[in-house]
Amino acid sequence: MPPPAVPTPEWVKKLTPSGPQGHELLAQERAKSTLPVQNLSTFLFTEEVLERKRRILEILTKDPVFDKSNNYFAGRIDRFEAALARAKRLRQLTVDHGWTDDEFHMASDLLNEPTPYGLHASMFTVTLRDQTTPEQQELFYKKAKNYEYIGCYAQTELGHGSNVRGLETTATWDPATKTFVLNSPTLTSAKWWAGSLGRTATWAVVMAQLIINGKSFGPHPFVVPIRDRKTHQPFPNVSIGDIGPKFGYNTMDNGFLLFNHYRIPHINMLSKFAGVDPKTNKYIRPAKASLVYQTMTWVRSTIVVQAGSVLARGVTIATRYCSIRRQFQDRDAPPGEKLETQVLNYTMVQIRLLPLLAATFALHFTGKNMMALYKANQKKMQETDNGNTTSPQRSPGPEELRPSSDLMADLHATSCGLKSLCSSIAAEGLESCRRACGGHGYSSFSGIGPFYADYLPTITWEGDNFLLTQMVARFLLKSARSVLKGEPPTNDTTRNLQNFLEKSEMGAAFDILGKDEDIVAAFAWRAAYLTFEALKRRDEQKTPWNDLLVDFFRLSKAHSQYLVVQSFYTGLQEPSTQQELDPETLALMHKLFRLYALHTLESEASEFYSSSAVTVRQIQLARTNAVMKLLAEIRPHAVRLVDAWDFPDWQLDSSLGRYDGKVYEDLFYRASELNPLNAVTIDPYPNSGVLFKSDKSSQFKSKL
Amino acid sequence: MPPPAVPTPEWVKKLTPSGPQGHELLAQERAKSTLPVQNLSTFLFTEEVLERKRRILEILTKDPVFDKSNNYFAGRIDRFEAALARAKRLRQLTVDHGWTDDEFHMASDLLNEPTPYGLHASMFTVTLRDQTTPEQQELFYKKAKNYEYIGCYAQTELGHGSNVRGLETTATWDPATKTFVLNSPTLTSAKWWAGSLGRTATWAVVMAQLIINGKSFGPHPFVVPIRDRKTHQPFPNVSIGDIGPKFGYNTMDNGFLLFNHYRIPHINMLSKFAGVDPKTNKYIRPAKASLVYQTMTWVRSTIVVQAGSVLARGVTIATRYCSIRRQFQDRDAPPGEKLETQVLNYTMVQIRLLPLLAATFALHFTGKNMMALYKANQKKMQETDNGNTTSPQRSPGPEELRPSSDLMADLHATSCGLKSLCSSIAAEGLESCRRACGGHGYSSFSGIGPFYADYLPTITWEGDNFLLTQMVARFLLKSARSVLKGEPPTNDTTRNLQNFLEKSEMGAAFDILGKDEDIVAAFAWRAAYLTFEALKRRDEQKTPWNDLLVDFFRLSKAHSQYLVVQSFYTGLQEPSTQQELDPETLALMHKLFRLYALHTLESEASEFYSSSAVTVRQIQLARTNAVMKLLAEIRPHAVRLVDAWDFPDWQLDSSLGRYDGKVYEDLFYRASELNPLNAVTIDPYPNSGVLFKSDKSSQFKSKL
Repeated sequence: MPPPAVPTPEWVKKLTPSGPQGHELLAQERAKSTLPVQNLSTFLFTEEVLERKRRILEILTKDPVFDKSNNYFAGRIDRFEAALARAKRLRQLTVDHGWTDDEFHMASDLLNEPTPYGLHASMFTVTLRDQTTPEQQELFYKKAKNYEYIGCYAQTELGHGSNVRGLETTATWDPATKTFVLNSPTLTSAKWWAGSLGRTATWAVVMAQLIINGKSFGPHPFVVPIRDRKTHQPFPNVSIGDIGPKFGYNTMDNGFLLFNHYRIPHINMLSKFAGVDPKTNKYIRPAKASLVYQTMTWVRSTIVVQAGSVLARGVTIATRYCSIRRQFQDRDAPPGEKLETQVLNYTMVQIRLLPLLAATFALHFTGKNMMALYKANQKKMQETDNGNTTSPQRSPGPEELRPSSDLMADLHATSCGLKSLCSSIAAEGLESCRRACGGHGYSSFSGIGPFYADYLPTITWEGDNFLLTQMVARFLLKSARSVLKGEPPTNDTTRNLQNFLEKSEMGAAFDILGKDEDIVAAFAWRAAYLTFEALKRRDEQKTPWNDLLVDFFRLSKAHSQYLVVQSFYTGLQEPSTQQELDPETLALMHKLFRLYALHTLESEASEFYSSSAVTVRQIQLARTNAVMKLLAEIRPHAVRLVDAWDFPDWQLDSSLGRYDGKVYEDLFYRASELNPLNAVTIDPYPNSGVLFKSDKSSQFKSKL
Repeated sequence: MPPPAVPTPEWVKKLTPSGPQGHELLAQERAKSTLPVQNLSTFLFTEEVLERKRRILEILTKDPVFDKSNNYFAGRIDRFEAALARAKRLRQLTVDHGWTDDEFHMASDLLNEPTPYGLHASMFTVTLRDQTTPEQQELFYKKAKNYEYIGCYAQTELGHGSNVRGLETTATWDPATKTFVLNSPTLTSAKWWAGSLGRTATWAVVMAQLIINGKSFGPHPFVVPIRDRKTHQPFPNVSIGDIGPKFGYNTMDNGFLLFNHYRIPHINMLSKFAGVDPKTNKYIRPAKASLVYQTMTWVRSTIVVQAGSVLARGVTIATRYCSIRRQFQDRDAPPGEKLETQVLNYTMVQIRLLPLLAATFALHFTGKNMMALYKANQKKMQETDNGNTTSPQRSPGPEELRPSSDLMADLHATSCGLKSLCSSIAAEGLESCRRACGGHGYSSFSGIGPFYADYLPTITWEGDNFLLTQMVARFLLKSARSVLKGEPPTNDTTRNLQNFLEKSEMGAAFDILGKDEDIVAAFAWRAAYLTFEALKRRDEQKTPWNDLLVDFFRLSKAHSQYLVVQSFYTGLQEPSTQQELDPETLALMHKLFRLYALHTLESEASEFYSSSAVTVRQIQLARTNAVMKLLAEIRPHAVRLVDAWDFPDWQLDSSLGRYDGKVYEDLFYRASELNPLNAVTIDPYPNSGVLFKSDKSSQFKSKL
């Protein structure tokens, strides 16, 4: 990096921020509360994970390739090259240290940027592991695992995203040569968005319409060599490139890919579940589609699990900075008070930040419940598989594969609803945190903006957050129909629906301000009410599906909000929670639960009214009394609570969120010492070139 | 720009999107409606403005310096240099063509990027024009106007934003030398964020605490030479630089500035309103602070005026793209239907986009009303000034200057409330539009993301959108007190409050589904209800100000939403509107009014319930019947409605929003032909350098 044009003068270097200093303010904050931070961290993550983090952090921070100081300044090409270098180094470290998957993921998490190996290490390798025959395992999976093949996963096309059934790329079986002919018949059939494809991958798993003897059998996966190992150029009749810059995620080479009647051998169709018999030229129907289906559920569950920690990064940065930033005196402050107030003392800042702080814990418990449900289903599937040979017909589409059991249906709906809600909470929350930092939140050095921009695709991929709500609604309508038919409840959802039916004639009387369990019950009640309302419109009034999408969205949100509130509540009742947390922390967690639940309830007040779950008066009291009181009670613990999320400064890479509070020093250091623009001296007058005299020539100089 | 590594193969160049083509779909859309686009454009902008746009567009598009094709790819330094070159060229064109201010602003608007001359052309020159003595006009203003001095406006500091009174930079009067000594006593006193300061300006208007004889007289403006004209280096004892990259606005050099006991002559204090008498060394009190105060109101009013058009860019892009993008068949479509549905046909997409389309018109009429109020006040002030010699005391602070008349108080509150609401609607709306574009919305080529990122500071600057709501609340509380005292209503606000008081014992019965004027009345009722509720809490219950901030925010929002709905409604009643719009367009505008108002009402349902303005049943009917019906009725006109906003493709710079619908062709062209990353060939294997063999050397190659 070039040095700044003018070195920072000595008299500037001597300046310090006006007092009290950031580190003093954070020390005061930490002294206000006796919350045992270390203990809460251990409860959230376990000692094993915390130890792992320290160990891997030390390895990464010592390695110059992971130096982050240029990240916020570099252009796309430099950032991409840096990210690739880091991906390579992570792979080398994995080999050198014999890292487990958990250790590798910890390193990626600390590095905090998508890398060009991202899709290789996940979807490409996992697909080859799970969807190959033993012969293919040897040929493809092992090479992928050892990074001899670098791959990507090419499904989405320029004209086709969510609707996998509508993909245009074809793989036509040629009985004469026993090969598949891959073809991109239109521009819209270009594979588009696949991560790691643009510049990096030598192989791709390609989803293409399988055609045998003129008949289409729907999309199937093929593993396809796309670039020459020696020259790294695309093979003839293959066209590849990077799709260009994005709102974020610019360290990743999302790519495009087209085929011109490109042939691959029979062995390259991933055939664990379905295939083509090369002798009869007949389609072999899939045996166990549920496993494919499990992959999507797994990915969504992972998004749910991560949402709390994603949001916590923004909340950590904003909470620390709002404890240091001071602005105005409180209007009711004693006259003569000179010191400005920490902005975290303003209720308008508290109402924006503290419910998000509460949400980080709500999402933490929700993630735990999500993963428990996933594991319960996996266990049950394994038990069933052992004595089961049924082969459900594969029928992917807007509703994906139909779940084959009650538990699986529950898991599917839960993962769809929670993926949609939790990733939205995290994304919106990050942006709220950025804005709560005022002007400096707009600086890249806040660390929130770049992270938010990288996180944003999560609300679209693995099922668009709006689209997924239809699947939740379908599950709920089906559940309601079974309850109306008098079938006995089989899960929490049907129990809530049954309970609502039984009591709907008596009305509800939830003491939301007095009893925590009544808050949970009010959320269940509202979701049940909306379910039966939607059912009436669909089944009785025969309303077209399309006219109900907005209702379905609201229904899915209501149901998923119930799941979050319920997870938080039951998480606090768990014996392990009661055991691991001291009474003070536990009491504070209960307050965070109430803040999260009541604030959510108040934001959705009209549905709670309509369903008669609560009264107008209760909502008013919740807003003006309960929530405001909770803000005041939680405020003193805010900094310690975010400390418990245990983000190393290196991971946050934020001037505003530094653990030591040296906000202004760091902003100034990055601007004055690291910023390469300051090495450019321009000529400011209109009738001149752009750059100053002896400075490097500019493409714009000649144009004037 | 380097050529792509591998040229696009001929077989790819021959491909077209699968049919129907984008241009066919847009043609169908435009055929569905008979809305006279040209006529509506003229109504919105006037013929004069439309002609101006065409004329200037032609000049700009012919000039290579304004070529936008590299914008989404270039790194910060290149973008900054390009923006400076364009700023210079705009200045040259202004001189060459003798452009008026309106013509210059049109050119800037079409260029669609902040430039390093941005603050020179606005705040620097305007401040010099308005706050200088005749002698200073000659010395400073004229040179600024002729671009002999390039300047910026340095007010915000590293540690001080909204609270101008808390600024730390000092300007100490030295009677011995008759100079002011500018000083930055701390790091937090560094001027920070000032646009055009980082690399460009040679002069700065600096706000600093005036100190005379040890006593502080508050912040005052000084015009300060900061860089040497010949070397463009900072003067000794001045430290300047760019503050680094931001979430957006990266073509602008927002900067920092510090002084080390830096002396400027007496003449450099801008002394039209206040000053220091160099003979007596006494402070000269300000004569007419109202003009200073008017500048802030003017800037806020401008933000209100622009909000509709800002939002309309996103709505234009999303509406066109959602007419072309197809995904899934409608669930109730006839079996065998092969063609996928345009996503704009899904109600879930309609509910996200069409209320925003309605909002563009709501904001248009709001902007017109805002400007009319501003002009009425200016006229009144001029009339008063002629016979008035009172000099209101200047007392800037969190509440800024207290307005000195009823009309001015109304203008102040209205500009604060509407700036807060309208810029939030525009910003949130742009992001909603981006997301409504699905995956491709995330691509920079969507054109929405980069524009949104550049617009975002608007919600923070010129009064933070949260902070401003306190000023609105204060105005409303004061108005309510006067009504309670029995003072006769003087404006629309007090009339509404009076009306509420008179009828509050009878209750309201607004026919929101039947009568448009009743919708407006319901908004007025709810705002009045919240005003008296807040007043009760403040005056009767003596609630601390800080505990009311959340209530004040809601109150300001409710009041401002009323203003928007009322502006839209009365705008449609105007004789000029009735005259200029044909009956069909007028009927459609009324539908847009209802959609905007009922959708807003429904989003804020709980406050409408609490205030008893509407019943639960009414809201349910509004949601499930009225709004859904309006969506269906407006849907066929959507593309023509956005066409009426008349954005040239060159201005939007969006693949998705092209007038001709060639979405996929343009996405592919930019990715394959313009994208410089595709010129980089990497070595993908973990134990190698980053770049491929003969390729240019990389800083990361050596590190591995």
